[in-house]
Amino acid sequence: MPVMLAAAVDYSTILLSLFIILAAAKIMAEIFERLKQPAVVGEILAGVIIGPSLLGWVEPTELIGIIAEVGVIFLLFMVGLETKPQDILRVGKRAFLVGTLGVIFPFIAGYGIAMWWDGSFVEAMFIGAALVATSVGITARVLGSLGLLDRETSRIILGAAVIDDVLGLIILSVVSGIGRGGVDLTAVAKTAGLAITFTVVVGLLGSRLFNRLGPRIENLKSGNSLFTFGLILCLGLSVLSMYFGVAAIIGAFLAGMALAETTEGNHKVHQLTSGVTEFLVPFFLVNIGMQLNLSVFKDADVVVLAIIITVAAVTTKFIGGGLGVLGMSKREIAQVGVGMIPRGEVGIVVAQIGLGMAVISQQFFASVLFMAVATTLIAPPLIKIFFAEDKDNDGIMDEFEERDVSEEYSRIG
Amino acid sequence: MPVMLAAAVDYSTILLSLFIILAAAKIMAEIFERLKQPAVVGEILAGVIIGPSLLGWVEPTELIGIIAEVGVIFLLFMVGLETKPQDILRVGKRAFLVGTLGVIFPFIAGYGIAMWWDGSFVEAMFIGAALVATSVGITARVLGSLGLLDRETSRIILGAAVIDDVLGLIILSVVSGIGRGGVDLTAVAKTAGLAITFTVVVGLLGSRLFNRLGPRIENLKSGNSLFTFGLILCLGLSVLSMYFGVAAIIGAFLAGMALAETTEGNHKVHQLTSGVTEFLVPFFLVNIGMQLNLSVFKDADVVVLAIIITVAAVTTKFIGGGLGVLGMSKREIAQVGVGMIPRGEVGIVVAQIGLGMAVISQQFFASVLFMAVATTLIAPPLIKIFFAEDKDNDGIMDEFEERDVSEEYSRIG
Repeated sequence: MPVMLAAAVDYSTILLSLFIILAAAKIMAEIFERLKQPAVVGEILAGVIIGPSLLGWVEPTELIGIIAEVGVIFLLFMVGLETKPQDILRVGKRAFLVGTLGVIFPFIAGYGIAMWWDGSFVEAMFIGAALVATSVGITARVLGSLGLLDRETSRIILGAAVIDDVLGLIILSVVSGIGRGGVDLTAVAKTAGLAITFTVVVGLLGSRLFNRLGPRIENLKSGNSLFTFGLILCLGLSVLSMYFGVAAIIGAFLAGMALAETTEGNHKVHQLTSGVTEFLVPFFLVNIGMQLNLSVFKDADVVVLAIIITVAAVTTKFIGGGLGVLGMSKREIAQVGVGMIPRGEVGIVVAQIGLGMAVISQQFFASVLFMAVATTLIAPPLIKIFFAEDKDNDGIMDEFEERDVSEEYSRIG
Repeated sequence: MPVMLAAAVDYSTILLSLFIILAAAKIMAEIFERLKQPAVVGEILAGVIIGPSLLGWVEPTELIGIIAEVGVIFLLFMVGLETKPQDILRVGKRAFLVGTLGVIFPFIAGYGIAMWWDGSFVEAMFIGAALVATSVGITARVLGSLGLLDRETSRIILGAAVIDDVLGLIILSVVSGIGRGGVDLTAVAKTAGLAITFTVVVGLLGSRLFNRLGPRIENLKSGNSLFTFGLILCLGLSVLSMYFGVAAIIGAFLAGMALAETTEGNHKVHQLTSGVTEFLVPFFLVNIGMQLNLSVFKDADVVVLAIIITVAAVTTKFIGGGLGVLGMSKREIAQVGVGMIPRGEVGIVVAQIGLGMAVISQQFFASVLFMAVATTLIAPPLIKIFFAEDKDNDGIMDEFEERDVSEEYSRIG
């Protein structure tokens, strides 16, 4: 089928959507920055406003979903570029505890609430699963824009998000099995084994490999070779991670980490990448906002359920995550706790799988959707507050007006 | 319809396509650079190889078409950033002549060949129209990667491409009218008037406006404000230009030009933009290559027709364009002539409209498709040869290995 460039495709309408999304996101970001609020919240709200819930100017189409996905992939790639494997390994135990406890608590809460709300067993398992996975993109964006990715607690959050994702995958495969009528434990073990092996092998060996390859890549003829190589590696590991059952963003994060030492001090690679994220990440954030279905509020029952689930999602993740770093200072515990709160796109996908299998009700689905968007809106201000104290000492919070390359590239996007 | 993030969408397959396209393009670019050939040719050939013609690994889907379109939009935006309005105005008369003669000659040739090949009158008009429009993206990419956008002949080519596009639009609206059974001259005049007014007004006033606004934009709170503003302006003017009947890339080029003085010496805006083009332009080039339908070669008649049309497309554009700058040196005449040769996506779209209206045959369609891809492959080496002499004196051709910021950002992408 070689003839598909298609005059039939209405490019002007599609370009108009892209323009509206980008402009709305950036205007709201600017407003929120001026109000000293996180730009991320403004960008997600931009999605609520221009999306089907309110103005209906833009629909969350498949195309926008894909651009959003590529956006969050490059966001995590960028975060990876600023994270060396040993940074994560050094906080490994704590990250593991945070990830694990931050999965167990929300799962139990989701399961309990759904059972209490007269949900079926399968339904309750799905709601539990939907409450599990942290959307690390939101936290990474906020921490990156504050220049805080090098904090110990930031690294614990990043490490925990990887573990969180792998555990979420295992839970989802168990729950989907139950939904289909029976769990194939061998298949689950295989899924888990592949995911863990992939993550560990790439995480540990990637960096060593590219430290050797780096100089050779820089000698390639075509322009910006290291950045180009990074783009290809980022997309390649994203795809590969999906085939191994892990989220694409985990692969992208590992790709960034593999290049972190090679590109250390290489401002150009960071800046070229931030050109891409600056363009694409707004689509990720707006797309989350566009998922919100405000018609939920027509049904008082659903409102109650949505609020209960949201409160549970926030508190259990905060407590679970916080428990994982018991022994650190109170502020650090709070930092890790709030950093794990955002659920965003991951919870939505789990709920959609449940809906697709016809094992969860529209009520539950709407509530999870609400929770997913609400947690992404609640978390950033909390992250800013609990991390802000660190920064006030350095006075960095007031340096927003400054514009120099070294500051800019340390911002994500 | 708020529920569309869709677990149903197969992200891994789509991401895999993106990965294959990017990797294939960059590998071929590297090979061609080493052979001292233009990288562009390698990237287009990558599309031929991985597309339906040969390996069939990737199909030219609507999604890829859109990414390609956004890619060429940012490419022209980047070219605009390096072009001040007065640069174009200074060569205005010559650009006008090149644009006009470069439209008349190919149109007559296309019309004549189609009539001689037993085409209908409508068919012949369409083939003429399909031969008209230069795909300036290809030329801009080659000149940009050689750092030659500041040459007088480069500016003549850019200016001529704008005029070429407007004339192409007028011809297409006349020809489509004939195809539908009657030309509404008032409508054609209105289309032409709007397109010309839009281009002239934005081209002349845009720059003045943003020279004043520039400092204010830089004071915005959100990060990379000038680049962000550029992104929004680029998409906005692309959409607007489509509504005024002009190609999106013309709007993007005007957007870049409007900011050219404001961002002069602003390496960061250039570098952030080149991050985006480095990522997206390969999709534009590969997508052209994927349009090629090698099954054409099964029919000897079509092969003959395709070759005749291609030879005519190359020679008439070269002669028409060259005549427009009569009086310049021979080398400069040749530079302008070869710079106008690539047809690429524009010719394909015209032919597709004709096919959609069922007024041109599959034979003619296949031949135009072949011509469009062939001219984009033929032109870059010629551009490199005719412009190379300029550079050899400066020794810049040999500086490819050098890697410093100032050189990198002057490369397009």
